[in-house]
Amino acid sequence: MDRILDGVHFDIDDRPALTAADGYEAFGIEDPRITGIDDTYYINYVAVAASGVTTCLASTRDFKSFRRHGVIFHPENKDVVILPQRIGGQYYALHRPHSPLFRKNDIWIAESPDLLCWGRHRHLMGLRDGSWDETRIGAGAVPFRIDEGWLEIYHGADRNSRYCLGAVLFDGEKPWEILARSKRPIFEPQAEYERAGFFGHVVFSCGLLFEDDMLKIYYGAADTVTCYAELPLSDVRAALKA
Amino acid sequence: MDRILDGVHFDIDDRPALTAADGYEAFGIEDPRITGIDDTYYINYVAVAASGVTTCLASTRDFKSFRRHGVIFHPENKDVVILPQRIGGQYYALHRPHSPLFRKNDIWIAESPDLLCWGRHRHLMGLRDGSWDETRIGAGAVPFRIDEGWLEIYHGADRNSRYCLGAVLFDGEKPWEILARSKRPIFEPQAEYERAGFFGHVVFSCGLLFEDDMLKIYYGAADTVTCYAELPLSDVRAALKA
Repeated sequence: MDRILDGVHFDIDDRPALTAADGYEAFGIEDPRITGIDDTYYINYVAVAASGVTTCLASTRDFKSFRRHGVIFHPENKDVVILPQRIGGQYYALHRPHSPLFRKNDIWIAESPDLLCWGRHRHLMGLRDGSWDETRIGAGAVPFRIDEGWLEIYHGADRNSRYCLGAVLFDGEKPWEILARSKRPIFEPQAEYERAGFFGHVVFSCGLLFEDDMLKIYYGAADTVTCYAELPLSDVRAALKA
Repeated sequence: MDRILDGVHFDIDDRPALTAADGYEAFGIEDPRITGIDDTYYINYVAVAASGVTTCLASTRDFKSFRRHGVIFHPENKDVVILPQRIGGQYYALHRPHSPLFRKNDIWIAESPDLLCWGRHRHLMGLRDGSWDETRIGAGAVPFRIDEGWLEIYHGADRNSRYCLGAVLFDGEKPWEILARSKRPIFEPQAEYERAGFFGHVVFSCGLLFEDDMLKIYYGAADTVTCYAELPLSDVRAALKA
């Protein structure tokens, strides 16, 4: 039977592409984000072990053989997305350190000369009290360029741990500057399979395609199933302006 | 009057050399460690703000004018010490991320091409249950070379928040490999001014001189006064072998 390459039907391999391989990954790996740069795909993922929650990096050209590059963000750090282009010679990544002292789960931005070492950390966006993103936020899909700048689809949770998706727009040349942020979610758990499951009332994306002015979003629902939704860019633009 | 340049008597300037200057430092800066590399002194320090506890970097050649380089370790991270030599072309630093999920306050090591961006994080040493360093540890003075490798004087605290100093020896060429660690403290709060004060039963060092096989340790006592102690290297060697 011919493969259907439509981005909706999938042949699922018998074995995972990557599995926990060292002490930093002892309790598992999860939430990969994939950034294509030149001919290489860089996969950053959350690694969990008794030593803490870190973000690690792997790379591949063919999704058959993978090279591991170790821990790129020390504990506790999740929700890392690497921008697919250098800006002023540097790579940029959004990341989400956890600050227990001040109960912060905010999004920061860092830069790197080589994708392995990250610094010049800047606080980018915080929680909004009383809002759908009041207790935690984190980058979702890898940011992509639209005319106005970098568009990022992020997740946020409220005090009931209800996870929705929102949009934020960064300056194209200065990605540490926010141009607009959606007041309301652009996508929220509504369908039965998004409301009920292992962890209900959750939509959480680690990747999307942007084609023909359409966001084609892959997301986990209720920590149980993987879903697909299409959202016109015009709807996201409207949410950013509202 | 001539200045006495003996490392024990000090003329204290009327104004601090560095004070809190931006949003990451809103609640203050503290615990500087200074590493001299070529003709420049690199000062990393803890910055505290509502966005979290970070480590920032500044540099100076004359201790009159200072240049700030921003946040080099994202929240929460303290007790960073930068090794004074490149090894295999890379800089190395010990750091102490805080992992609330697993209640970890362990020492990690990272590398950097430029002192600004840090990665390839590796877990270096952990807490020892039932020991003087059972609840938190962190690098103290900048590591220095002895014949056997890099010697680091670190601090540890027990369940009563009693802070002592210990010694750890790293491989000279592979500083991520530990060769020896002192079972007992090499220095503990004993004097009246170390036991009573703002935060009693604390000795905490951010710097020392190593001259003539003698460790000349500058340290804070009881979070109240700054003190000086001399400890022969032979005593530290004995502690590492015990």
